[in-house]
Amino acid sequence: METILTLTEAASRLAAWDDILVVCHANPDGDALGSMSGLVRGLRALGKRADWYCPDQVPEPFVYLFRGLENSGLVPVHTVTVDVADSKLLGPGEGRFAGKVELAIDHHSTHRPFAKERWVSAAAATAEMVWLLLKELAVTPDAAMASCLYTGMATDTGCFRYRNVTPQTLRLAAEALEAGASAGDINQKLFETKTLAYFRAERRILEDMELFCGGKAAMVLLPQSFYAETGAREDEAEAAVGQLRQIEGVLLGITVKEKPDGGIKGSLRANPPVNAAAICERLGGGGHAGAAGCTLEGMSIAEAAEKMRAACEQYFAEIGCI
Amino acid sequence: METILTLTEAASRLAAWDDILVVCHANPDGDALGSMSGLVRGLRALGKRADWYCPDQVPEPFVYLFRGLENSGLVPVHTVTVDVADSKLLGPGEGRFAGKVELAIDHHSTHRPFAKERWVSAAAATAEMVWLLLKELAVTPDAAMASCLYTGMATDTGCFRYRNVTPQTLRLAAEALEAGASAGDINQKLFETKTLAYFRAERRILEDMELFCGGKAAMVLLPQSFYAETGAREDEAEAAVGQLRQIEGVLLGITVKEKPDGGIKGSLRANPPVNAAAICERLGGGGHAGAAGCTLEGMSIAEAAEKMRAACEQYFAEIGCI
Repeated sequence: METILTLTEAASRLAAWDDILVVCHANPDGDALGSMSGLVRGLRALGKRADWYCPDQVPEPFVYLFRGLENSGLVPVHTVTVDVADSKLLGPGEGRFAGKVELAIDHHSTHRPFAKERWVSAAAATAEMVWLLLKELAVTPDAAMASCLYTGMATDTGCFRYRNVTPQTLRLAAEALEAGASAGDINQKLFETKTLAYFRAERRILEDMELFCGGKAAMVLLPQSFYAETGAREDEAEAAVGQLRQIEGVLLGITVKEKPDGGIKGSLRANPPVNAAAICERLGGGGHAGAAGCTLEGMSIAEAAEKMRAACEQYFAEIGCI
Repeated sequence: METILTLTEAASRLAAWDDILVVCHANPDGDALGSMSGLVRGLRALGKRADWYCPDQVPEPFVYLFRGLENSGLVPVHTVTVDVADSKLLGPGEGRFAGKVELAIDHHSTHRPFAKERWVSAAAATAEMVWLLLKELAVTPDAAMASCLYTGMATDTGCFRYRNVTPQTLRLAAEALEAGASAGDINQKLFETKTLAYFRAERRILEDMELFCGGKAAMVLLPQSFYAETGAREDEAEAAVGQLRQIEGVLLGITVKEKPDGGIKGSLRANPPVNAAAICERLGGGGHAGAAGCTLEGMSIAEAAEKMRAACEQYFAEIGCI
C-alpha cells in the first residue's frame, strides 16, 4: 500500500489530478511553507484547482509567500503533503488527514511512511524536489513561484551555509534567481533583519546556557516566560539558539522549549561527527544529521532537560567523544 | 597604456607568461586571499612558476588557503594583482609594486586603473573571475584550488546572502563543490565559529552604537582599546559590526576603526536604497553599493566619526531618506 515513487511517477500523479489540497507540517518552517505555496502556485499555473493548508498560523516573516494565493475553499479530491516526515508532525491536522494523504513529498531520510504513496529524495530541501517536479510538469515558474521555492531552499540550508548543500541545491537556486526570485529581499528579511528583541534573546541565551560533555554540548531552556521577558518572537528565539552550535568547540546545541500545550520540544543542532537525528530517534523523534527534534510529553521542562542531557551524554560516550 | 582586456585576452596573457607573482591588497579578506591562492595553484598546475605576495600577515582563519603553497622565492617577470581596486590599497606593497603591475584582475566597479592592462568584470567576487580564467586556460581544478576559489565566492557574498549574488555566482560555486571544495568545513570555520570573545564584541557594539538619521543609520567607533577590552580579534570585530546593518530599520551601518598606524578606516555596509560606495567615494574611498570603505588620515577617531556622520547625513538628505 505504501508505495515509493520516482520523480516521474510523482509528477504523473499530479498531472492527472485536480482539486488538490497541499498540506505542510505544524510548527512550519520556510521549507514547509515555501514548498507548499510554491507547489500550489505551480498546480494553479497548470490550470488545476489547488488550495493549501497549514496546521498552525503562518509565522509573520513568511506571510509574503501567500500574497495573491487565497484559498478557494475547494473540496479536496486529492491530498498531498510536503516536508512532512511523520503524520504526528501534522499536529492539529493529524486527526483530519491521517489515512487520507495520497502523496507525501519529503526530503527527510527519517521519513516514517503514512501516505498511500510517497516520493522521498535526498535533497537539501523539499523545495528542491518541488522545483524538479514542476520542471517535469513543464511549468514555467513566474517570480512568485520562484520566490516561494527559493525560500525553501534558502531556509533549510541556512542560506546555503549548512552541510546539506549540494551542487544541485546551488544550481536550482540559480534557476530560481533567473526565474525572478527576489533572493536579495528574501535573504535580507529572513537572515539579515533582527530586532533589538532578537539581540536580547541572544544575550539571555548565552548567559543562561549550560555547557557539558567537556564543552562540546551547550543546552538552554526556553520556558514560556522567555518570550515575555525578552520580547522576542518564537522564530527569533529559534534563530538566537542557532548561535549555540556556532560557539567554538561546541558540537551540539540543544534547546528545550516549553510549548503552549504543555509538551516539551527538544531541538538539536549538530556539527560533525555528532549526528542529531541519531540522538533524537532514541527519544521518538527524527530529522537530519545536522538538525533534528523530538517531543517529550507528560513531564516538566526540567525533567525533559535531564532526559535529553542523559541521551546526549550517552551518545557522546558511545562515539568516544568524551 | 591602461588597456581593458576581455576574459580571453587576460587568459592569453597568463598562458604566455612564466615567473609570475600574484599580489593581493592589504587588509586582505577572503576574496583577496582565496583569489590569490587559487590563481597561484592554477598557474602551477599549468607547469608555470608562480608565487604569491600579501602586503599584510594572512589572518588566522585563512591560513588553510596556503597549505602546501610555499613560495619558491622566484624573481618575478610578471606581476598580477587580484581584487585590488586602487594601487593605494596595496598598503605597504604600494611602493614596491606601483608602476610595475602588468595585469589587474578585479571585480570592483570603482576600480581606479593602475596596471598596464586590466580585466575588470561585474562578478560578485574576484574568485568567480579567476575560476572562469582557469576554465579558459583548461585547468582542471583540484580540491585545494576549488576550496580557495570557493572561499572567495563565499566570503564576498556573505555566504551567498548579499545582493551581489547572481545565477553565475551560484553555478560557479556548484562547480567548485563538484571539484571537491570543502564547502561544509569552510562555511563552518568562516561563518559558524564564534568565540565567546566574538559575542562580547557584539554585545559591546550594540551597547555603544549610536543611531541617527531617524534610526536609519547606526555608527560605532572601534578604538584600538576595543580589542584588548573584549578579547576579540580584528576579523571578529569586523563580523560583529556586520550586525549593525541587520538591525530592523537600519539601512546603513558605519564602523569607524582606529588603525595601528594612526589612520582611521571607515567601513560602510548598506541596504538598498542606500549606496555605500557613493558615500565613500566622496571621502576618497570606494567599494560596492552594499559595502564600501575609506581611509581618513591626520585626524582623531572622534573627528573622523564626525566627518563620516556629516557625509552620511548629507547623502541621506539628498536621496530624500530623512
